Amino acid sequence: MSEADDRLRLSLLTEPGDPRLGILLRDVEPGELVAAILRGGSSIPGPWRERTATLDARVDRVKARVEEHGLRWVVPGSREWPCALDDLAHVEAAQDAGGPPVGLWIRGGGRLAALAERSLAVVGARDCTAYGTEVASEIAADAADAGVTVVSGAAFGVDAAAHRGALALGGASIAVLACGADLDYPRANAALLTRIAEEGLVVSEQPPGQTPTKSRFLSRNRLIAALAGGTLVVEAARRSGALNTLRWSDALGRACMAVPGPVTSQQSAGCHRAVRDGKAVLVTEGRDVLAELAGPGALSEPEPGGAATEFDQLPADARRVLDALQWREVLTVRGVADRAGLTTREAGRCLKQLQRRGLAESTVGGWLLARRADIG
Amino acid sequence: MSEADDRLRLSLLTEPGDPRLGILLRDVEPGELVAAILRGGSSIPGPWRERTATLDARVDRVKARVEEHGLRWVVPGSREWPCALDDLAHVEAAQDAGGPPVGLWIRGGGRLAALAERSLAVVGARDCTAYGTEVASEIAADAADAGVTVVSGAAFGVDAAAHRGALALGGASIAVLACGADLDYPRANAALLTRIAEEGLVVSEQPPGQTPTKSRFLSRNRLIAALAGGTLVVEAARRSGALNTLRWSDALGRACMAVPGPVTSQQSAGCHRAVRDGKAVLVTEGRDVLAELAGPGALSEPEPGGAATEFDQLPADARRVLDALQWREVLTVRGVADRAGLTTREAGRCLKQLQRRGLAESTVGGWLLARRADIG
Repeated sequence: MSEADDRLRLSLLTEPGDPRLGILLRDVEPGELVAAILRGGSSIPGPWRERTATLDARVDRVKARVEEHGLRWVVPGSREWPCALDDLAHVEAAQDAGGPPVGLWIRGGGRLAALAERSLAVVGARDCTAYGTEVASEIAADAADAGVTVVSGAAFGVDAAAHRGALALGGASIAVLACGADLDYPRANAALLTRIAEEGLVVSEQPPGQTPTKSRFLSRNRLIAALAGGTLVVEAARRSGALNTLRWSDALGRACMAVPGPVTSQQSAGCHRAVRDGKAVLVTEGRDVLAELAGPGALSEPEPGGAATEFDQLPADARRVLDALQWREVLTVRGVADRAGLTTREAGRCLKQLQRRGLAESTVGGWLLARRADIG
Repeated sequence: MSEADDRLRLSLLTEPGDPRLGILLRDVEPGELVAAILRGGSSIPGPWRERTATLDARVDRVKARVEEHGLRWVVPGSREWPCALDDLAHVEAAQDAGGPPVGLWIRGGGRLAALAERSLAVVGARDCTAYGTEVASEIAADAADAGVTVVSGAAFGVDAAAHRGALALGGASIAVLACGADLDYPRANAALLTRIAEEGLVVSEQPPGQTPTKSRFLSRNRLIAALAGGTLVVEAARRSGALNTLRWSDALGRACMAVPGPVTSQQSAGCHRAVRDGKAVLVTEGRDVLAELAGPGALSEPEPGGAATEFDQLPADARRVLDALQWREVLTVRGVADRAGLTTREAGRCLKQLQRRGLAESTVGGWLLARRADIG
């Protein structure tokens, strides 16, 4: 029996995402572990032992579903397996769901390893505001436009907006589900999931046909965080599941980002808390996100309209002269000097400086502020 | 002649806020410096020399205004002088306006040193949004309610909202002006300035009657930052003067804070940039601000509705059982075990745990989710 088959059996004998599984697979080959569970020693957790009785029937059912829905079973070490997922082996299972998945069921034509290589998770509130939808969709579109795959959970709200934003720009997207990859969950997003599978991938560690539970949503979150180069939270209340994904991203050493919003909105409270606690970097647009994904070593573009204005960069005396000048009132050098608290010679020198920069204009009878000098 | 008189003359011979003044006063007594300027050596800046001719007349004019408007002249070392202002002597004058003021003209009945002791600067955009007005006013009210003096610049927008928020709670407020403390600037805020003077203070380093200029606004900002224990920016565009105040606060080692807003609002762009660049801590409410003012050593209250939910804190098996339970469908222990992927014994143990926590209910024929178990 191949390792892929052993892993498939493991995924049916255990609960995928169970941290004990990850720990055991550090020391034991999948085939050995399957054999040990089938032997049923006292060290094997009861629920795993109980599932042995129906294993063969379930393998057959899963294989039928795989065929019916055009799924494939991808395992560690295969060409399509993204190394990024192996990072989960090195995370302390403090979050109580851990380890790399034993394998992934995949629906869609994309290649997982290639799509995950440059990728961003965009997650957030299901019951987000119109602001959340707009920002998630725009940042996802910017990411897609830069060739970055958008990873999310296909839930209502921020997740769906992020997938849609990426697809709108012709980008690829990966939906990681808490149920079987053959199921459309939530049902209302069936058309979206079909499009995601066409342009990217629908992925799950849960066997085909499996229904989602709260625990499975939580263990699914670690896969979203691990697949992506960084996680962005767009709107999350204080207890949002999106913050769980962010914690996984942090534990994995990935970029962690959050979008701020009005402090009067509960849907941004989790984002603000994450930034305040240093768990996420504040980002406001696609450019910020791409810079964070690129990492601290990346070159940052000079920002348009940066902090230091042209006014700030002028010598102090020239600034006083600029202050003294008017748009409509022609002033003599003497008049400028008086207003600026400078000598006539100093004022004259500054006026020449400002004229060279196009900030002051010499005219009949004296000096005026140049039209372009609106550099507040 | 007293030192207070020497300092008054200095403020009329020089431009208050001129960094050269701060540097000279590190080594020379005010009286000596006045004498040196009056002697007019070549080391004395031209504009200072030029002002000597009209000094006596200006002293008389200022004294008349002081009397007319009920101002007082407060100088370093006097009982009302806040030591906080002396911190300006230790800041590199990189911002090109520096040093402690030679003295302050003050209008109002409050005592400056006492009011500044626990104080918060709230600054921001003149053309702020309704959101900015609301947040500035609310946080200022929270500060006032905690006995913290709100310091600002009496400008339109955020400044005025902050003063008003403090006054609304019966708190004291300090307005630091870029013009003479006798002037109502902007004129539309005259009634507000009158109330501030009644409940707190209107303060300026500029001589009475002096008009504001861009340079004076900038050097005024350092006084706002220095008087307050920390500076909070509520709405600031990328080039807002409020960010200048924040930089001063940073240079002085004071608490630096910014309120986030929608990323779609240009009026929050400066705040977001400051947080992103690590120049300000993100704050969302009065409680955050008071915690920052108290400093890192202060005890932080346990937050309501914190990150770890009751669900997160349950053992993994108990979480699965909680997932499996329903509100309306009574399940046998066997049924719960099947859904949770646990043995009957494990499921039974978890149900007892959940029952003790009031999350599961035992009823005729089996188990139900308890009503209070909405702990998502």
